[in-house]
Amino acid sequence: MTSTSSKRYAIIGTGAIGGYYGARLQQAGCEVHFLLRSDYEQVRDRGLIVESVDGDFTLPQVYAYSDPAQMPPIDVVIVALKGTMNDRLPALMPPLAPDAIVLTLQNGLDIEAGIAQWFDPERILGGLCFICANKIGSGHIRHVDYSKIVMGAHSPRQQRQPITADMEAIAADFERARIPMTLTDDLLMTRWRKLVWNVPYNGLSVVLDAQTDEMMANPDLRSLITSLMTEVVTVANAWGAKLSAPNPSPQRQLPEDLIPSMLDHTDQMRPYRTSMKLDYDSGRPLEVETILGNPVRAAAQIGIPAPQMTMLYQQVKFLDQRQQQSAAQSREA
Amino acid sequence: MTSTSSKRYAIIGTGAIGGYYGARLQQAGCEVHFLLRSDYEQVRDRGLIVESVDGDFTLPQVYAYSDPAQMPPIDVVIVALKGTMNDRLPALMPPLAPDAIVLTLQNGLDIEAGIAQWFDPERILGGLCFICANKIGSGHIRHVDYSKIVMGAHSPRQQRQPITADMEAIAADFERARIPMTLTDDLLMTRWRKLVWNVPYNGLSVVLDAQTDEMMANPDLRSLITSLMTEVVTVANAWGAKLSAPNPSPQRQLPEDLIPSMLDHTDQMRPYRTSMKLDYDSGRPLEVETILGNPVRAAAQIGIPAPQMTMLYQQVKFLDQRQQQSAAQSREA
Repeated sequence: MTSTSSKRYAIIGTGAIGGYYGARLQQAGCEVHFLLRSDYEQVRDRGLIVESVDGDFTLPQVYAYSDPAQMPPIDVVIVALKGTMNDRLPALMPPLAPDAIVLTLQNGLDIEAGIAQWFDPERILGGLCFICANKIGSGHIRHVDYSKIVMGAHSPRQQRQPITADMEAIAADFERARIPMTLTDDLLMTRWRKLVWNVPYNGLSVVLDAQTDEMMANPDLRSLITSLMTEVVTVANAWGAKLSAPNPSPQRQLPEDLIPSMLDHTDQMRPYRTSMKLDYDSGRPLEVETILGNPVRAAAQIGIPAPQMTMLYQQVKFLDQRQQQSAAQSREA
Repeated sequence: MTSTSSKRYAIIGTGAIGGYYGARLQQAGCEVHFLLRSDYEQVRDRGLIVESVDGDFTLPQVYAYSDPAQMPPIDVVIVALKGTMNDRLPALMPPLAPDAIVLTLQNGLDIEAGIAQWFDPERILGGLCFICANKIGSGHIRHVDYSKIVMGAHSPRQQRQPITADMEAIAADFERARIPMTLTDDLLMTRWRKLVWNVPYNGLSVVLDAQTDEMMANPDLRSLITSLMTEVVTVANAWGAKLSAPNPSPQRQLPEDLIPSMLDHTDQMRPYRTSMKLDYDSGRPLEVETILGNPVRAAAQIGIPAPQMTMLYQQVKFLDQRQQQSAAQSREA
């Protein structure tokens, strides 16, 4: 087995996703520095415990921080915070090595554009994670299924971007850490592709208090899910075509069989509570703007009607605001 | 004060609506026969109690029945059951006097067409009730606000229908009973007009677990409500125009200021839990087909897109089915 790269990693946000990937990287021999908040003392003293379908393991000692300024200079900053927290991200950044890279593992649209307001746009990568994992206790992660990441480079003008040597080195580290990683030269369309699933299932799971299997078993909801997916695909393909003009590129279109194959795939998944539903049930703020609001605005910007996506956004935003306001009132009382 | 007509009334379904209107008619001197189910013995022995913004009153003795066949021949059969129970209606009909009339006070679309499958279509009336009333105990009704009825005659081909002497006699009885009644020659457009309110507020109140005031205070939901209302108005006006061809009739269009005036009106109402939400919270089946399903099918039939109304129908139908299935499972267990 070849050795891992000499890149030094930081995990900003050691929840289920950041904790699992970071632990796997360290297990494979990478140097990984973990930023923690509520779990800091526990992880500093006892490390990380991972239960995983790909094999359980424990890391008794990790580099744990509550203050990112204490970290050494970092080569690859992996952002695994909830997308709702990105306005706090500049204050959570570690010292940077020359040519440092930020890799955001967050869902939704326009994530990189937000980071590019204060970090070199040429050195931002985005990764879409296909993983079922939960944090079940302090420093204790349960990895239930999948783990694949699709990674691409940010382009300020949303163009396709060639795959770089840095990206290949990171992918090699992840592969050695048993995390399948696919590299893409089209991060935008990869994000849209994931939204085709996330928009209907995340949104409806919150509005209807339902898991994937309940929704798939109901003919009306199957029809609604298909219709929402069609809206997302239509907007995505319109952007794909517009951004590749004057030479329309067939590669910047989502595959024609994407919707039936996603429905099939979801039928075969075990019953799943979506990440947005998990957040909602735990009283956390929802990633409503990145997963629903930004796609709705992207539809409006290009003049494609998206009435059902818009309705879902408005419904989820109402529920999120009501829950957050009610929590704020309880804290005051 | 002139005396009431000699018409004999039956109330089929003595809940909040049927109980209130029937009690008012009896109070005004009409002969009223009440069909009851769970409240039968209580009402037979102790009559009806009405708390009302228009004056409290008690009727210690009423004609109460658990079997409609025991009633004398009835002139005006007032159907005040939930729309979900209309398949049982033929078995709940009393003996009929010559030229008897059925007046349905149920919400939604295509109510009369269902009744016309087994009753003379020429003698069916429909009434839209604008009333806030609840049944708060056995034979005990609380009338909170409003009470007006708009009544028109059914037309199998959905044409405008002239106002008859029978309708005027019924309206006079209601007016004497302190129930404002307006007669219309266009029952179809009157039903659509009420749906402009019922579709968004009934549907969203169930999906989002919200009262009217919460929805109106949220800018996203105000926008969604307006958009849903616009869909309903568009479908209604398309039917109004189609049914009056070849001489398009401006009267068969909903008023241009209907949506802003409904929003204003709802802003000024006290916080209100819709009838569909009350049903949902009590575990009763929802009037999802008459209030949402039939309008969605009417849109499809005339080729008008109604994506948000359709989505709302699918969401409410899912919630209704889940609740009814879960209740059926509890009964079996």
